[in-house]
Amino acid sequence: MSEESTRKPDPAPTHKLAVIGYGTQGVYHTRNLRALDDVAIDVVGIYDTDPRANEDAAADGLHVYASAADILADDDIDIVFICTPNDSHHDYAISALRAGKHVLCEKPAMMNSAEMREVAAVAEQTRRMFMVHQNRRWDPDFNVIKKVYDEQLIGAPTYLVQRIHGSRGIPGDWRQLPEHGGGMILDWGVHTVDRLLTMVDSPVVDVYGELSFALGHQVDDGFRAHLTFANGFHAMVDVSTTSFLPEAKFWMQSAQGTVVIEDWEMNGRMVRRTGAEEDDATPVQAGVGLTKTMAPRILDYKTLATTTPPVEVLPLPEVDVDVMDFYRNARDVVDGVAAPVITNESVIRCLTVLEAVVASARTHEVVHPEQA
Amino acid sequence: MSEESTRKPDPAPTHKLAVIGYGTQGVYHTRNLRALDDVAIDVVGIYDTDPRANEDAAADGLHVYASAADILADDDIDIVFICTPNDSHHDYAISALRAGKHVLCEKPAMMNSAEMREVAAVAEQTRRMFMVHQNRRWDPDFNVIKKVYDEQLIGAPTYLVQRIHGSRGIPGDWRQLPEHGGGMILDWGVHTVDRLLTMVDSPVVDVYGELSFALGHQVDDGFRAHLTFANGFHAMVDVSTTSFLPEAKFWMQSAQGTVVIEDWEMNGRMVRRTGAEEDDATPVQAGVGLTKTMAPRILDYKTLATTTPPVEVLPLPEVDVDVMDFYRNARDVVDGVAAPVITNESVIRCLTVLEAVVASARTHEVVHPEQA
Repeated sequence: MSEESTRKPDPAPTHKLAVIGYGTQGVYHTRNLRALDDVAIDVVGIYDTDPRANEDAAADGLHVYASAADILADDDIDIVFICTPNDSHHDYAISALRAGKHVLCEKPAMMNSAEMREVAAVAEQTRRMFMVHQNRRWDPDFNVIKKVYDEQLIGAPTYLVQRIHGSRGIPGDWRQLPEHGGGMILDWGVHTVDRLLTMVDSPVVDVYGELSFALGHQVDDGFRAHLTFANGFHAMVDVSTTSFLPEAKFWMQSAQGTVVIEDWEMNGRMVRRTGAEEDDATPVQAGVGLTKTMAPRILDYKTLATTTPPVEVLPLPEVDVDVMDFYRNARDVVDGVAAPVITNESVIRCLTVLEAVVASARTHEVVHPEQA
Repeated sequence: MSEESTRKPDPAPTHKLAVIGYGTQGVYHTRNLRALDDVAIDVVGIYDTDPRANEDAAADGLHVYASAADILADDDIDIVFICTPNDSHHDYAISALRAGKHVLCEKPAMMNSAEMREVAAVAEQTRRMFMVHQNRRWDPDFNVIKKVYDEQLIGAPTYLVQRIHGSRGIPGDWRQLPEHGGGMILDWGVHTVDRLLTMVDSPVVDVYGELSFALGHQVDDGFRAHLTFANGFHAMVDVSTTSFLPEAKFWMQSAQGTVVIEDWEMNGRMVRRTGAEEDDATPVQAGVGLTKTMAPRILDYKTLATTTPPVEVLPLPEVDVDVMDFYRNARDVVDGVAAPVITNESVIRCLTVLEAVVASARTHEVVHPEQA
């Protein structure tokens, strides 16, 4: 080993972070940052309106601030993590940036794209980081699909379905209330559409949206977003809180193959055609009729036995991603040595497309948010 | 038993039928009619341009007519069954009706709704039967879904997916050619949309269509049709000839349950919620994040073990339908004792909605075919 490579690097500066909102996500980030020994961001304290959250924080050895303003007035704090209900993100973000803090923020970043544009502009002016915790860009299932898409492992994909199916309705708190930014568009829409826009490098030319209000709330309890990209790729996002039999999380096809990821446990596979069609299929009985076109190619999906002409069944490709890179990137952004992995432009774009989904569902017409 | 009930009914008159086009479907109908001992329709002869079809017919003991005109001139023949490529149905139908024949016809009835209106009008004028073989209204899977919908076995359904997924492309004959009415809209569209319109008693107010040309033919090799009915019900029809991993044939949800039919073999089940939600779900780890909303209710789909609050897993309901009723109904219509089970109005309506799917895909806008 050379002398240079054994020389210790300068120790990274230690940052001090305060959490606004010590609920599920505030606790989650605190634990992650404490567990990471390569990210020098100390969680120092929290502010929350809930006495129980304050007790939890004190038990966790955190300083309990009396107000968010007290955090912003504390010169020791250089990063604030906003983990409060959705409608409060905008004001906290603006105040924190103007107070000279770097800001991390839970999703949905903002209630709408206009709010997000304003916050992005203030971050630009104050030269401070504003970065949204779009954690599900690191989900293994999405990254497998992205790899299949990027590397054309089934050829050039034509259509993707991305589903989030649950059957418990919407949690019975502020998430049911429109004034706090409840509903599935601002919950799972912000993940699912964000990931699509991250994967497909092409403008969104057509958006057809359908909202579900099956549970009788004022907010949507699910939605379907049908997107067409300028490059011809189609995608459907299907989010439902009334699906008692979830369908596959990801399903993507091309003219030469199909890939499926069935569940959170990453059960799935790829099937590819390995050669040209030999002949027309022999008609088979299907239901009360005959079909050549839909004659099965794989006769037993349980054992994945194949018929001719041959298709091959492959396991899902491996991916190696680590959601903790979000914190590592945040530290590097604050230290001025990296660009944000989640750009504010991408967040504005996602909110704009989601607004197109809502507008389409309300008008019953197609919306063309990024048409040339 | 009373004397009256033991008295034999008058023997039903025997009808004589000729088939135009002795391909897969012409042979299929001939065999069915010969096998049915309660339908007095004798298949007498055929006309086909293919020498091999003529040899087959002669071997089957059928008279081989030298032309379709010879069939129409034969006073012994009172029913004609049109089993030729799609673009020839219109002219054969008009000629046969004008010659005083009753007409049965393979699907798609016509190339478009205008042709079908014309034929329906001629049938009306000539007081002859024109009835299309919409055989897949008798498919067991569709009839199970229809029963769940009609009897609200999972409550009031909100959304249905109907899929026809194959991976063999389009058979390499006239079915690839637009001038003969090739493509999946006129193949499986005519079944799938027809069944939807049969099931949902409400006007189609919104149609959003996406056509696939993944295989490079001039005709569509698949399509997705998103329909919204005036009663609020949504449906998607998804037909693909490039699906190497078919998804479930039918999937329907309500706020209280879901039903799935996975395959032609009628594997499937219903899951229903049996009571009110007890509490918010406990957040669970899913991918790289936590979720309350999407916390699984059924922990092991292989064994269908359930969690609380309880849901029940039920088998698919039983249905008892017989596609041979098509021929029985045709005989009764000809005998003047029944109305057609497949009305020409329903066929016109289906073609109109399919034209809306194509128009939507071409214009990238929503079409409103039956909006008040």
